[in-house]
Amino acid sequence: MSFQNKYEVLKSYVDEELNKLKHIHSDNPKLYEPLSYMIELGGKRLRPVLTLLSCEAFGGRAEHAIHPALGLEVFHNFSLIHDDIMDNAPTRRGKPTVHEKWGVNMGILSGDLLLIKSYELISVVHPAVLAKVFKIFNQTAIMVCEGQQKDMDFEKRELVDEEEYLRMILLKTGVLLGAALQIGALAGGASDADAKSMYEFGCEIGVAFQIKDDWLDTFGEEEKVGKRIGGDIVEGKKTMLMIKAKELANELQSQKIYKLYSNGATEEQRITGVLEVYDELKIRDICKAEIYKHYQVALLKLDSVSMTPEFKSYFRSFAEYLIERDF
Amino acid sequence: MSFQNKYEVLKSYVDEELNKLKHIHSDNPKLYEPLSYMIELGGKRLRPVLTLLSCEAFGGRAEHAIHPALGLEVFHNFSLIHDDIMDNAPTRRGKPTVHEKWGVNMGILSGDLLLIKSYELISVVHPAVLAKVFKIFNQTAIMVCEGQQKDMDFEKRELVDEEEYLRMILLKTGVLLGAALQIGALAGGASDADAKSMYEFGCEIGVAFQIKDDWLDTFGEEEKVGKRIGGDIVEGKKTMLMIKAKELANELQSQKIYKLYSNGATEEQRITGVLEVYDELKIRDICKAEIYKHYQVALLKLDSVSMTPEFKSYFRSFAEYLIERDF
Repeated sequence: MSFQNKYEVLKSYVDEELNKLKHIHSDNPKLYEPLSYMIELGGKRLRPVLTLLSCEAFGGRAEHAIHPALGLEVFHNFSLIHDDIMDNAPTRRGKPTVHEKWGVNMGILSGDLLLIKSYELISVVHPAVLAKVFKIFNQTAIMVCEGQQKDMDFEKRELVDEEEYLRMILLKTGVLLGAALQIGALAGGASDADAKSMYEFGCEIGVAFQIKDDWLDTFGEEEKVGKRIGGDIVEGKKTMLMIKAKELANELQSQKIYKLYSNGATEEQRITGVLEVYDELKIRDICKAEIYKHYQVALLKLDSVSMTPEFKSYFRSFAEYLIERDF
Repeated sequence: MSFQNKYEVLKSYVDEELNKLKHIHSDNPKLYEPLSYMIELGGKRLRPVLTLLSCEAFGGRAEHAIHPALGLEVFHNFSLIHDDIMDNAPTRRGKPTVHEKWGVNMGILSGDLLLIKSYELISVVHPAVLAKVFKIFNQTAIMVCEGQQKDMDFEKRELVDEEEYLRMILLKTGVLLGAALQIGALAGGASDADAKSMYEFGCEIGVAFQIKDDWLDTFGEEEKVGKRIGGDIVEGKKTMLMIKAKELANELQSQKIYKLYSNGATEEQRITGVLEVYDELKIRDICKAEIYKHYQVALLKLDSVSMTPEFKSYFRSFAEYLIERDF
């Protein structure tokens, strides 16, 4: 089966099972509306698909890992709902965010509910691996919170260096992809060592994925990415691109950037001005190389794992898909 | 040992172990400040003490239940932090609330962290009872969210009847006390039936406890309760007192209450006016009888459980302490 087909098969299974979660019986249906809403917003379902694929790669059947897979997707949605409140984001995938639609209080409370639901789902796994799965999930959940805290912290700071930024995106994005793979592997019967290697593979592709996200926000095509290009530049976000640029800029270029964010430059001027500096410093290619570097480290981790060539090629294709995508 | 002594011994153990939680090593200490702050605010530690006592009552040692006990206290603190944001509460125990001190975003995030930590702690229990404990905790956590949602919902409504109110306080307060007892019982080796009876005992004393809280807010003594008396009346909160009053009021009394909340009555006028109606309708005694009723049901549940007379008397004293307290 081609990777594309494999991905579609697993994603359909995930979507089908996610849809069942919308029909929770409760004497309090209002509380569950945001859960249904988030499920209907759709998405790539990266985390659950990685969990199922990893389970199968080590000899398990997808059904053995479906509940933890759903738990990871529900956890991801919990973090989106709360992050959107903290980031004051009005829309997600072109639709109003939960707190925009139902108010901040319902955003907080329904996020809490999703976090609890994610624990409920995560724990429906073979008793032999429950304790391990649970521990990984706990540690990951805490790291994701720490990543969000760093992200908020960075907004208030003048300077953030590359190392700090890499650590933040590892926590905010990498570890959850890593945990998805590690938990799937354990559910499928992998050794602890192989499961750990899959975790590290996931962390690295997660970091590459996040830098690609930054890259697309500036160098992507509007129709494909599905949002306005240059948003990060307008907001002055400390992305990998901006951090590299500030690191490499000469005196003149530094001043140019500084002025674009200190006086009343228009959004257009900001985008044009910053793009000129990015161009002079070859930020486009430097960041592509950075993405590729993490992709290569990821593949090395994958190589150390014993699995069939078929599954190894799926994971390679998965990693490629994450860094080559133009959407 | 007297009940008072027993309570103090267990509470000291809980406080000691809670203090250890303040020293979590992290490269992100800021995120853990609200956790330490909440622990230092103190409190009666009802939930963890109930867990330990219940564990001992069925033959376990307190150490067998200390982690779930701490998990329940941490969960309680998670819910306080998020509820305080939703209720827009500036102070708790005379100190600024977490969101007041660190901002709403840190309130949301540190609450999330506490919820995750509570799961981490809950799961440190004998593997033989882990699955049961985990299931009870999940169901309880969801019910607490449902209770908070109902509470917020009631604020927007004109009328709330007694049955709805009892259901709300059962979810918001009762079930967590019930779960504390049930989880402690299971950790101590109780049968499922006895553990369930302890849950029901806890739910009923939780409801009685909450009505007593309402009662003290209106009929308590300022120095003992530690906050201004009549706050609920000023805010027009739908407490058990107000619900009973509206239910029993004649046309004149209904109009009197209505006017106190519709025109520009001062806080003093509201308190005096509502107290006059409460007095005419004997709300003070009617609510005392309601508290006593739930206390009696609780004792019936307790009677069905087999444990030593010593422990049975501890639980009776505990229930009495919760409903007789004047603080």
